[in-house]
Amino acid sequence: MSDSQFDVVGIGNAIVDIISQCDDDFLARHDAPKGHMRLIDFDTATRLYAEMGPAVEISGGSVANTMVGIASLGGRAAFIGKVAEDDFGHIFARDIQSAGVHFGTTPSSSSDLPTARSLILVTPDGERTMNTYLGVSPHLNRGEVDPEVIRAAGIVFLEGYLFDRTEAKDAFRQAAEIAAAAGRRVALSLSDKFCVDRHREEFLALVRNSIDILIANENEITALYLVETFDEAVRLTQADTQLAVLTRSAKGSVICARGQEPIQVEAQRVDNVVDVTGAGDLYAAGFLHGLAAGLSLEVAGRLGSLAAAEVISHFGARPQQSLAALAKANNLI
Amino acid sequence: MSDSQFDVVGIGNAIVDIISQCDDDFLARHDAPKGHMRLIDFDTATRLYAEMGPAVEISGGSVANTMVGIASLGGRAAFIGKVAEDDFGHIFARDIQSAGVHFGTTPSSSSDLPTARSLILVTPDGERTMNTYLGVSPHLNRGEVDPEVIRAAGIVFLEGYLFDRTEAKDAFRQAAEIAAAAGRRVALSLSDKFCVDRHREEFLALVRNSIDILIANENEITALYLVETFDEAVRLTQADTQLAVLTRSAKGSVICARGQEPIQVEAQRVDNVVDVTGAGDLYAAGFLHGLAAGLSLEVAGRLGSLAAAEVISHFGARPQQSLAALAKANNLI
Repeated sequence: MSDSQFDVVGIGNAIVDIISQCDDDFLARHDAPKGHMRLIDFDTATRLYAEMGPAVEISGGSVANTMVGIASLGGRAAFIGKVAEDDFGHIFARDIQSAGVHFGTTPSSSSDLPTARSLILVTPDGERTMNTYLGVSPHLNRGEVDPEVIRAAGIVFLEGYLFDRTEAKDAFRQAAEIAAAAGRRVALSLSDKFCVDRHREEFLALVRNSIDILIANENEITALYLVETFDEAVRLTQADTQLAVLTRSAKGSVICARGQEPIQVEAQRVDNVVDVTGAGDLYAAGFLHGLAAGLSLEVAGRLGSLAAAEVISHFGARPQQSLAALAKANNLI
Repeated sequence: MSDSQFDVVGIGNAIVDIISQCDDDFLARHDAPKGHMRLIDFDTATRLYAEMGPAVEISGGSVANTMVGIASLGGRAAFIGKVAEDDFGHIFARDIQSAGVHFGTTPSSSSDLPTARSLILVTPDGERTMNTYLGVSPHLNRGEVDPEVIRAAGIVFLEGYLFDRTEAKDAFRQAAEIAAAAGRRVALSLSDKFCVDRHREEFLALVRNSIDILIANENEITALYLVETFDEAVRLTQADTQLAVLTRSAKGSVICARGQEPIQVEAQRVDNVVDVTGAGDLYAAGFLHGLAAGLSLEVAGRLGSLAAAEVISHFGARPQQSLAALAKANNLI
């Protein structure tokens, strides 16, 4: 393979996280649905930001976090996403590049919209509640999905959140078509339960017809199939997909591969869960990196568990140590 | 006392920290003096930022951190410092206000200079090396030191770093004069060994003639007196000052009060030192809060050790939990 190729290219929202601690009452007073992501407008973001406690700013974005995780594991990753020409845009671009991820999307200069930001409220139990103002991010358009980058990657990883805005959804569909035509695998993250509620029919059609690898957590997959139990969701996923991984926090994950029994993977034990932001994103990083590296499905799942465990032991959704070193220390790579 | 009064008002640089991890080789390659603060220009900041690893942004500034610590301990704190009308300026202002510190300095709108930022490189041993681009911060001028705020505070805490630029030094001297005329106590932090090297004669004159409370670490106080040993520095400090506290990391601190034997205070044990940024600032918070609250010098020192221990157990120089709760749990307040 040449230097111009990537293991995985991700397409998603380019977001800087603004992370603060609060109690459950604060969430209730602000109608923030605990454990989920809600979209907020500029005025709500301004009001909530003014009332939140002191914060930390760290680059985020679900699929962007996954790409950073893959790079930290030693994989070759690229990201496509839209920022503005402002301080947060500079922070996002520099952080992802300095993490070793190829990022070439031109910042928007024609729009007054700022770089996206997510106001993340972390409760004492480590659960995170996200309030996202998308700003310029969904204005990623077809012209900005570089076909060369898509064709140069073994796997294209698409963020379900892109479906929340028409332009970004278009870019999503275009990327999936280019990848399929080039014989590349297409992976989809369902992103969030509420996101699934907003786009259930389209997501079901994608899962059944267009997607090679599905990544979802327990809340998302039961919302997709409108079923009560995780076991029912596993059965339906197994019937609908070639390959899927379903995560369920401390209960571990289940890998569904067509023609095989579901594979159970244990969660990596974490003594002190500080902030669960990025747990799913980093699981996806470990899993996709394992697939790209030709490891067994079970080892790929264990890499996912390991990367998720690292990221929930501190604030922020990007790893704070080399995941490759961690994986080697655990005899996984 | 009325609501309009403060226990401590701090005057210092208003800085957002950009914190990243690196190894000792990286410091050497960039001529960054390990464990110290150096001033860098805009071009050097841009170059260093481009080469640093992924970062986290957290409001900082030495005396600003101290004011946040005092508020977290339950004290009434105010801060005077200069930011620009940019994203970092908004972050700084909101963070310090949401921490409960009174902050009323008008952001600069007349200057093209940005809000100050410190590129902080943390090595695996937890030591931090600071590279600060001051931007608009030293343009704090006499007109912006609100005499009412100074007179309304029991203690005025001045940052030695202000001496690095003429305008800020002027503001520093004016604040000290107003405080003295109003019968308030004036405290000084020597800030950094290199800062002491730059301003030794002026600092010595301040310590001998103008200052009521001196706060310094071992490197700074030995640099001030140009002596080899800490014990010599203690003896000279004892002769020159009414009240001083000299900190020495894991070796604890020594409180020098005129007419008394020096008081030894142990450091609070920390199992995992992550990032020592803010250790001295938070020691000062505990100590000054203890003084303001009328506690004994020894208990004030132990409050300092406790606050310092909290801040070195995570990235960033602002506390991540309530220091008042921590102090109560340790039977100090």
